[in-house]
Amino acid sequence: MVSDVEKNLVVGIDVGGTGTKIGIVDARGEILARDESIATPQYTDFNEFVDAMNSVVQRLISEVGAEGRIRGIGIGAPNANYYAGTIENAPNLPWKGVLELCKVFSEKAGVPVYTTNDANAAAIGEMTYGTAKGMKNFIVITLGTGVGSGIVINGQLVYGCDGFAGELGHVTMVRGKQGRLCGCGGRGCLETYCSATGVARTAKEILKADKTTPSALRGIKNITSKDVFLAAKAGDKIAKEIFKQTGTMLGEAIADFIKFSSPEAIILFGGLTRSGKYILDPVKKAVDKNVMPIFKGKAKILISQLKDSDAAILGASALAWE
Amino acid sequence: MVSDVEKNLVVGIDVGGTGTKIGIVDARGEILARDESIATPQYTDFNEFVDAMNSVVQRLISEVGAEGRIRGIGIGAPNANYYAGTIENAPNLPWKGVLELCKVFSEKAGVPVYTTNDANAAAIGEMTYGTAKGMKNFIVITLGTGVGSGIVINGQLVYGCDGFAGELGHVTMVRGKQGRLCGCGGRGCLETYCSATGVARTAKEILKADKTTPSALRGIKNITSKDVFLAAKAGDKIAKEIFKQTGTMLGEAIADFIKFSSPEAIILFGGLTRSGKYILDPVKKAVDKNVMPIFKGKAKILISQLKDSDAAILGASALAWE
Repeated sequence: MVSDVEKNLVVGIDVGGTGTKIGIVDARGEILARDESIATPQYTDFNEFVDAMNSVVQRLISEVGAEGRIRGIGIGAPNANYYAGTIENAPNLPWKGVLELCKVFSEKAGVPVYTTNDANAAAIGEMTYGTAKGMKNFIVITLGTGVGSGIVINGQLVYGCDGFAGELGHVTMVRGKQGRLCGCGGRGCLETYCSATGVARTAKEILKADKTTPSALRGIKNITSKDVFLAAKAGDKIAKEIFKQTGTMLGEAIADFIKFSSPEAIILFGGLTRSGKYILDPVKKAVDKNVMPIFKGKAKILISQLKDSDAAILGASALAWE
Repeated sequence: MVSDVEKNLVVGIDVGGTGTKIGIVDARGEILARDESIATPQYTDFNEFVDAMNSVVQRLISEVGAEGRIRGIGIGAPNANYYAGTIENAPNLPWKGVLELCKVFSEKAGVPVYTTNDANAAAIGEMTYGTAKGMKNFIVITLGTGVGSGIVINGQLVYGCDGFAGELGHVTMVRGKQGRLCGCGGRGCLETYCSATGVARTAKEILKADKTTPSALRGIKNITSKDVFLAAKAGDKIAKEIFKQTGTMLGEAIADFIKFSSPEAIILFGGLTRSGKYILDPVKKAVDKNVMPIFKGKAKILISQLKDSDAAILGASALAWE
């Protein structure tokens, strides 16, 4: 016999600039069915995109026999506004302006629809199914193409007065003109140093400044954090220096975040964390060096244990349990 | 006839390194009786200090006929831990170690006693009686001898996992060795630039670097922010430059705080705010320049309207209403 709790299911959707992933998720965080067939840029009309998502959702529901058991749909999307249920002026999506995502979708699907940005969804995912289960104060930092963050304080996600709180990828780490130009229009943002693209920029800079130290990274055209990781593992000095600089700056930023909300843990998430200790060691060292004595040794620096391929769907789905 | 709500009163106490202020406060934020006679450093024994506070409290209660009407006592104190009800290793107080302030005091006074640091008390005071009435997301920044902060998110004060969140005076504004040495042991903390002592340091630096521009500040031995204000008002270029540098850095820091919690308002509090537009204009300009487009024009930058002489007592007293 299936209990009432086990009967309840949610849908998690990750709307990305290239693809949209959809999954049916149970209360334990198991993905019962999934679909990754929707290519986001194919839909020039937003309503057609919502129709496409809805028809996939309905198909997955009938595949797992989940008719009448769906409590809601949670969607992680760029520039999503949790309060308004909208996507607002997202530069990487094909539709401009303010899009009434939750209203339009819930009318079609007949269940409540919630949305927030992907980093906030990751934080809710960690709290519901992951490393942050039971924590009341923590920060998830997503290290992907950009740097995002989801902040939880007193057990609640921090949305701020407008739904857009938690843009920690854009705190200024290098002030003035020497700061790297950021996609947000500013200079010196954390994201321009500690994202995948930031690591590639740092690699280029270091290789240009040091033309003599041998490195496996020389000659690679588009250096990825995986290239740097593999090189560092093989003992490459330049690769280690790239991780040292990246991790040190990330740790300096985290030390400031700790002074703000004194979290129990900082959970790192995304591609860069696959480099393990090469990134984690300098982060921890810089955090310890830059917090005040009162905070030393308190906040744990952890790596997310959610599988990368599942995390976006799980994070979004967790919105619908709240 | 006095209604029940009007009957209820609280006690607010501000424990400072030099003096301790005590007041009886009603629900409207009127201070019905006050005492500023306790010189903190006179008491080498912590228990005697609590006895002294308690006897003043009992005298004030009988003065206003408040017997049986006191709901609680709120205390703002350096290094106070809200969760534990303790003062922990406060460098500016005569007693070392961890002091069981709330436990000891409530046993003597017979009513509940609450404590937090002075900046958090200021934030609760603003929310209860001041500019932040009705706001759910705001940050109070206290600009005094040091720089402190009290952060409110979702209508709750942010204490973090250990009670010590909100140390925004110690975010790093100038990284590396060129950052000014801070009392916390770090370098480049906001407090070393935007506090009263920070302004004096900036004044010295600017006067040393520019020996030709005439200024009323030359020859003043210990420059205060009041000196700088009076000079700026009289058109002094050096004084205006001091405010410009101070306000710009404060605005850059505030821009990063906005990226964290997207507050409705930032409320500035303390001595430096008496300089009005001289400090406020560069702050607003720097905030606007350093936030992302999504945040532009949203967070109001306000100056506290609580009277300086009352604010510490009111802030502390508000703790006891919570």
